[in-house]
Formats: sequence, structure tokens, C-alpha cells
Amino acid sequence: MEILKKPEEMTAWSKRIAREDKTIGFVPTMGALHEGHVSLIRKARAENDAVVVSIFVNPTQFGPSEDYERYPRCFEKDAKICEAEKADAVFHPAVEDMYPEDHRTFIEVCELSNRLCGISRPGHFRGVATVVAKLFGIVRPDRAYFGMKDAQQLAIIERMNRDLCLGVRIVRCETVREPDGLAMSSRNAYLSAAERKQALAISRALRECEAKFAAGERKAMPLLKVMGDILAREPDIEVDYVAIVDPATLDDISEVKDEALAAIAVYIGKARLIDNTMLRAKSG
Amino acid sequence: MEILKKPEEMTAWSKRIAREDKTIGFVPTMGALHEGHVSLIRKARAENDAVVVSIFVNPTQFGPSEDYERYPRCFEKDAKICEAEKADAVFHPAVEDMYPEDHRTFIEVCELSNRLCGISRPGHFRGVATVVAKLFGIVRPDRAYFGMKDAQQLAIIERMNRDLCLGVRIVRCETVREPDGLAMSSRNAYLSAAERKQALAISRALRECEAKFAAGERKAMPLLKVMGDILAREPDIEVDYVAIVDPATLDDISEVKDEALAAIAVYIGKARLIDNTMLRAKSG
Repeated sequence: MEILKKPEEMTAWSKRIAREDKTIGFVPTMGALHEGHVSLIRKARAENDAVVVSIFVNPTQFGPSEDYERYPRCFEKDAKICEAEKADAVFHPAVEDMYPEDHRTFIEVCELSNRLCGISRPGHFRGVATVVAKLFGIVRPDRAYFGMKDAQQLAIIERMNRDLCLGVRIVRCETVREPDGLAMSSRNAYLSAAERKQALAISRALRECEAKFAAGERKAMPLLKVMGDILAREPDIEVDYVAIVDPATLDDISEVKDEALAAIAVYIGKARLIDNTMLRAKSG
Repeated sequence: MEILKKPEEMTAWSKRIAREDKTIGFVPTMGALHEGHVSLIRKARAENDAVVVSIFVNPTQFGPSEDYERYPRCFEKDAKICEAEKADAVFHPAVEDMYPEDHRTFIEVCELSNRLCGISRPGHFRGVATVVAKLFGIVRPDRAYFGMKDAQQLAIIERMNRDLCLGVRIVRCETVREPDGLAMSSRNAYLSAAERKQALAISRALRECEAKFAAGERKAMPLLKVMGDILAREPDIEVDYVAIVDPATLDDISEVKDEALAAIAVYIGKARLIDNTMLRAKSG
């Protein structure tokens, strides 16, 4: 496995692979790899001739009061995981190579970026869209793998990829969970034991929402209430949002027709955690 | 020569060329081709195995009160010119294929876009950057050719291309002029005979500025005054700006060190015309 630090080295590597008529699967990450990332790497491994994992804590997607500085960084450990999962290359650039002093270009995916997490994290998705476009330009993958825990991020990247004709196949991957239901996240490391226990209310709220939906409830209000009530019982959880939205536009909907995204974001201790589930009316 | 209308057809064409290990030179235009465009096509023809010309009047780079509707459109004539210049393909997409209803992604090149023409044309360079990135994604060129008349556009595209790692070689091409000095522009067609005559003041002002610079003047004020005085003599010219700026940042400068861009924009009749020249101190 090769570890590449310079964007131009990464691009040269990818061009060489492409010249051999091999496909490249790409897993962009901020490191602190967990089972969720591993599942992405495995899917990429299964579907492509070569696999690239990027490890880069992207400063432009963090707000000034957010956790950029203390975001977990453990490159040696991450590289070992990539190697064990048979990645062919790890791209691990320096901030100054990704954002030279005179970097001025940013990508906005309008409307989609101002919903849900975009409200409490202004500029976040601008940073995400920009860095993903840059990484696509550097790595030049055939396919790129993203987890559905970050549903809004995925919707934004899919739209950007289509709108800017980037030509990458975006592969949606199921959220990987701890045995007790907590969605895997690098930010779970911020939780104390007590907070960790309360955080289970997030996935429990989503499961209860699914159950009520499966029982026939189609109005958003009662579905939102089920989730809100469960979260409200936990003393250290501060709800950022509980939402039922159109999966394409991310607009709030009042009644679910065919499908809807139920999404939750909470603050708990030092962590901000998100999770979601797709509600789908069974046809026939 | 092939005429391709659908983005996916264009991309398939380009992929075929790339598989044959041929290079693609790309000339993006809004049509109404003149000698300036022809010079770009010729340069692309000389430097690449295949040449693609796009003809697309891009709505997102026009303000609501600008000339999008009446911008000259003459596709048959343009296609003949491309054929005569031995282009291999013309890409001529429909607006709805470039901007489907749910298009939401835009590219901002900050600071550079708020100077010079960006002041009187808010949103213009956002539209330019976005459509050029889209066209690069669709056409996938090795090299792209742009005229230096649009100096700010060129600076913005160069920055975007670098920042987003688009990997296209941007080729700067000299402004082509009418025998009397007027820079070629599709918008010259808007001028009456009387306006056409007055418009010569633009290039004359730039030549006088160059002469004063060559004679040793390095302060911006007197250089600006030379240009302003010449333009002020024309009754139908309304000056938008006369500027001496840093070619990289487009910031105003008060004294020229090594080089500076002298740039002019005026309104005259129904036209808004721009032109510029690079002032370079001879070294040694």
C-alpha cells in the first residue's frame, strides 16, 4: 500500500492506474476510522480494481467554534486499518497543499445546504462540497463511497456530482451501527459512559418512528412527536433538530407519500451526533 | 465534424478520443464567432489531436437586466466556421440539458469575482465559473483556450482550475483586434456606425497608457488619468471603470512594480465593452 501526501503524486498514481484500464474506488474520510469506514473500504474493494482512501481533516467544513482542533487524529492506526483492508493507496495531504494561501474557490449547493445540519452549521456543506470536488479532481475515481448516516452530505454530493458533471459514480452505503444501535461515528469518542448510554435514545427514537410509520402513520407531526418524546427523556441530550423531510429536496413534509427521511441531530456533552432512517411505504 | 447536443454524447465522444490516447483542445464560446474565436480554434488545432468548440449562450452569467435574450445567436454560421477551421466536434447543448430544473450547484471564486466587471455585473463570474467547470466535466479537455480580452474571466478560470484540481491546461491567447484597434467582441455587433467610431477610444486609451508607462510613469494616478481623459472626450461613452490592478489578485495598485493590468469597461449605446493591456516593466 502506498501512502501519498502530495496532490500531484496522488493524481500521477491515479493516472497510471487508469492507463492500465483499471477502475478506482475512492473512500474519502477524515480519519479516526471505525467499522463504518471499513464497510465503505470493503465495498470499494469488492467493486473496483484499485482502492484509494483519503485521510484529511478538512478545515473548511468546521465552523469557528467547532471541533476542528480536537477532532481525533490517529494516522498510524488508520493506515494500518487501510492496509489490512487491502487499500492500494492512502492519500494523506497537508492542509497547506489542499488550501494554499491564495485558494479562493468554493462550491455552493444551494437550498440543500441550508436545511437540517446546515442551519446550525453554516458553511459546513460549502466546505464539504468543495473538498469532495477537490478530492475527486485529485484522485479521479470511477466510484466514490459514502455512508448514509450523513444523509444530507450524500444528497449534496450527489447533486454536485451531477450538476458539475464530475462523472463519478456515487455509491450509497448503509449506516453501520454498534451492537446496541448507536450509529458509528468518529465523534462517539467524545462521549462519557453516561452520555454514551443516553445517546442510544437517538437510534431508539428512529426505530420507534419506523414502527409507527409501519403501523400506518403518515402524518409528520405524530412521527416527530414519537422521536422528540424519546429524546426529551435524556437529561444530557439537547435536540438540534428532529425532522421528516423529502429525501431529494430536504424540505420538511407534513405527510409522507412514498418515502421520507427521518433525521435527528443532537448535542450531547462535547459531541454533536446525527442519525437518520428512510421511511418507505411498502408498495402493493 | 460532429455536432453534439447532449452532454452525455459529448462525454462519450471525448472518452473515445482519450482511449485512443489523443489530446483534446477545447474552445468554449457563446457563439457569434469572430476572428478572436477563430484564433483560439487555430491554436487549439495546432496543439492537440482533437478540437472541440462549445457554443452555448450561458444564462447564469447574465444579470436580469443584461442582454441574454438579444445576445447574437447564429449557430449555422458558427458551425460552418468551426468546420472550416477543422474542429472535430461542436458541442451545442440546450439550456435545459445544462441546467435541469433542480440544478443547485454554483462555484464562487471569492474576491477575484468582486473586482472590476464583478462590481457592475454581480453574479456574472459565478455563472462563468460554474458553466466552465460543467463544460470541463462534460468535454474533459487536456487544454482549454481563452482570450486575454476577458482578463478577469481568465484569472478566475485559472484560479478555479487550480483550486478544484480540474487538471486542464489553461492557455492564454492574445486579444485579436480589428485593423483600427477595436478588440474583437460579439457585442461589437450592437454598435451603430457612430458608436463604433467612438469605441476606438478604448484601445486608444490603452495604447496611450502603455506609451506613458514605457516613458517611465509608474504611478497609477497619472496612468488612469490618461485613459480617463481620452474616454471622456466621447459623448456616447459612459465609463464603468478604468483600473490599474495586480494581475493575480485584481486589487487596485497605486504604483506599478513589475507588471500590472490596465483595464477598461465602458457602456456605449446598447453595448458594454471591455479591453485591457498588460503593463510590464522591461527587466535589465
